[in-house]
Amino acid sequence: MKTYDIAALPGDGVGKEVVSSAIEVIGALSDVHGGLAFRFTEFPWNCDYYMEHETMMPPDAMKTLAQFEGVFLGAVGNPAIVPDHVSLWGMLIKIRREFELSINMRPAKKVRGIESPLVNPKSFDLVVVRENSEGEYSEVGGRIHRGADEMAIQNAIFTRKATERAIRFAFELAGKRNKHVTSATKSNGIYHSMPFWDEVFTEVAKEYPDIESRSNHIDALAAFFVTKPYDFDVIVASNLFGDVLTDIGSAIMGSIGIAPSANINLSGKYPSMFEPVHGSAPDIAGKGVANPIGQIWTAKLMLDHFGEEELGRELLTIIEDATEAGIKTPDIGGRSTTAEVTEEICSRIRKKG
Amino acid sequence: MKTYDIAALPGDGVGKEVVSSAIEVIGALSDVHGGLAFRFTEFPWNCDYYMEHETMMPPDAMKTLAQFEGVFLGAVGNPAIVPDHVSLWGMLIKIRREFELSINMRPAKKVRGIESPLVNPKSFDLVVVRENSEGEYSEVGGRIHRGADEMAIQNAIFTRKATERAIRFAFELAGKRNKHVTSATKSNGIYHSMPFWDEVFTEVAKEYPDIESRSNHIDALAAFFVTKPYDFDVIVASNLFGDVLTDIGSAIMGSIGIAPSANINLSGKYPSMFEPVHGSAPDIAGKGVANPIGQIWTAKLMLDHFGEEELGRELLTIIEDATEAGIKTPDIGGRSTTAEVTEEICSRIRKKG
Ligand SMILES: CC(C)[C@H](C(=O)O)[C@@H](O)C(=O)O
Ligand SMILES: CC(C)[C@H](C(=O)O)[C@@H](O)C(=O)O
Repeated sequence: MKTYDIAALPGDGVGKEVVSSAIEVIGALSDVHGGLAFRFTEFPWNCDYYMEHETMMPPDAMKTLAQFEGVFLGAVGNPAIVPDHVSLWGMLIKIRREFELSINMRPAKKVRGIESPLVNPKSFDLVVVRENSEGEYSEVGGRIHRGADEMAIQNAIFTRKATERAIRFAFELAGKRNKHVTSATKSNGIYHSMPFWDEVFTEVAKEYPDIESRSNHIDALAAFFVTKPYDFDVIVASNLFGDVLTDIGSAIMGSIGIAPSANINLSGKYPSMFEPVHGSAPDIAGKGVANPIGQIWTAKLMLDHFGEEELGRELLTIIEDATEAGIKTPDIGGRSTTAEVTEEICSRIRKKG
Repeated sequence: MKTYDIAALPGDGVGKEVVSSAIEVIGALSDVHGGLAFRFTEFPWNCDYYMEHETMMPPDAMKTLAQFEGVFLGAVGNPAIVPDHVSLWGMLIKIRREFELSINMRPAKKVRGIESPLVNPKSFDLVVVRENSEGEYSEVGGRIHRGADEMAIQNAIFTRKATERAIRFAFELAGKRNKHVTSATKSNGIYHSMPFWDEVFTEVAKEYPDIESRSNHIDALAAFFVTKPYDFDVIVASNLFGDVLTDIGSAIMGSIGIAPSANINLSGKYPSMFEPVHGSAPDIAGKGVANPIGQIWTAKLMLDHFGEEELGRELLTIIEDATEAGIKTPDIGGRSTTAEVTEEICSRIRKKG
């Protein structure tokens, strides 16, 4: 029996609710598919932990996590008690960096049974490949002077290695999909980094003559996600641009609550991390209405990652069967609770299995 | 008779078509309102000029432009012959910087007769106040190493002076509108500059106890422009964030071809510059189908700026009367040419006047 050892980090807010929900779903899947088991070990690291220990995670946390085959994360952040940049850089971004999770892969597609806010979404099915290790998210920089003369300097760092890696990943992925890559740039306004990004993109594109490619400035691209999302296959973007595009992607899907993401380690040295696009949503936490689909779909990406793609496809079909049957949380126009959606998906798995 | 002396810079692509169209419209307005005249002086600076002179504008261009009361710009850029960062930094951004056009004001609203791509846009009416002098658009940075080790460093610079100025402008504007300001931040990911931005925002907000305020991360905010644009009044954003938000703003209005913008000088030392949000659109240039409304609405912002707000309101009403009557270019679902839309608006002005 193949057993996967996964570290579960529910984190803050709705993270706790949706992680436990997704673990139930994975349990049901393993039950009906003998020969497969997931063993989840939970760690209570979050903003409450910070209030008690003055750190988001204990000093040996990374060593502990490194022993697992995957990290399954809910959401991090509770700005009412810990500033966002402290909580996020102390946990989510720390794991992305230290485990060399250089790619953040985020699909967005029209889901059966969920209405898009767009009049004409047709059926879109795209994947954003987000550079996940550097770029605009950087601790390099600082402040100088005080008072009226104060200023903050923020450095964005773009290495050829990481840029090429993300772009090449996008072309490889497009090769298995619809053979089209769009690069998110802003080389007309961002003077040094983006012309560099464009150069690397042009070079890598030449290695893939069978794959079509184009570049769009991020402002136009963000607008195209609204006006013609069906026009895209794979989009490759910097850390910040990928962040913005994937939130728009989830908006046009119908809710930020359903969008999944995988932070992928390519070096083979560390576990990959799986977390939905949404945050901890303190406003709805504890009410039992958080949409578990983002986290469950994220579990599907984890299955794909472990080579269980058949199972992953099955899970996504069942998710869409459930939404099509109208078992939906309020954010997507339904009246079901987190628990009811979870139970619906589990029972469909058991029926099919 | 009050006469305004304006430098017209049609620039590249559709810029030429829509600037001449807007000048006609302003002419019609002045004709029917005795006591007002606009004198436009045209300069042929653009990418073709660059190909001939190796510079986007002659060395004394800024001195020449400084003698005018306003600059009326179409669009700059023709990446087929000049790299975008060369053409834009040589003209559009150069003028923004050297004339201290510290604020870029960009309204977005639901227009009568133009369909939004959103199922439920209700009626939204917002203004993005974009910091226009620094931030992510900076020439500070460069590259080091070659080959596999190459990297580009991009510095973003946020001074208290410019940040405060933009935020204060937003609060003042909200005071004349619906008394709500939203700050676009990303302090959970952008480590130095955005926490600084948040601090300044919080401080300035305290000076305006009658104005409601909140902060949203740019990823969430971009999504909210799709899911609930009617929830915003004034949004204040950095240079890059403002750029992205205003393209989404124009997408939800129904076309990038209709969105206006004003680059405002607050020091009183230089003319302000007026240019639509759209670019030079090489793909449709020369076909006579460019939407002139972005440029005409931009002329309305120029009227407002000169204190001719009554006239500005009248012009916007006439624009909406024309779109409601179905006289529209193809980008907004009509079949009219640039010339036909222009003529429709001019004749409505004459009829009313
Ligand atoms: C052309 C480009 C440099 C410019 C910008 O990013 O400022 C444009 O997108 C705009 O919004 O005016
Ligand atoms: C919480 C934040 C730091 C994070 C990011 O910007 O990467 C989130 O928005 C995401 O997209 O995973």
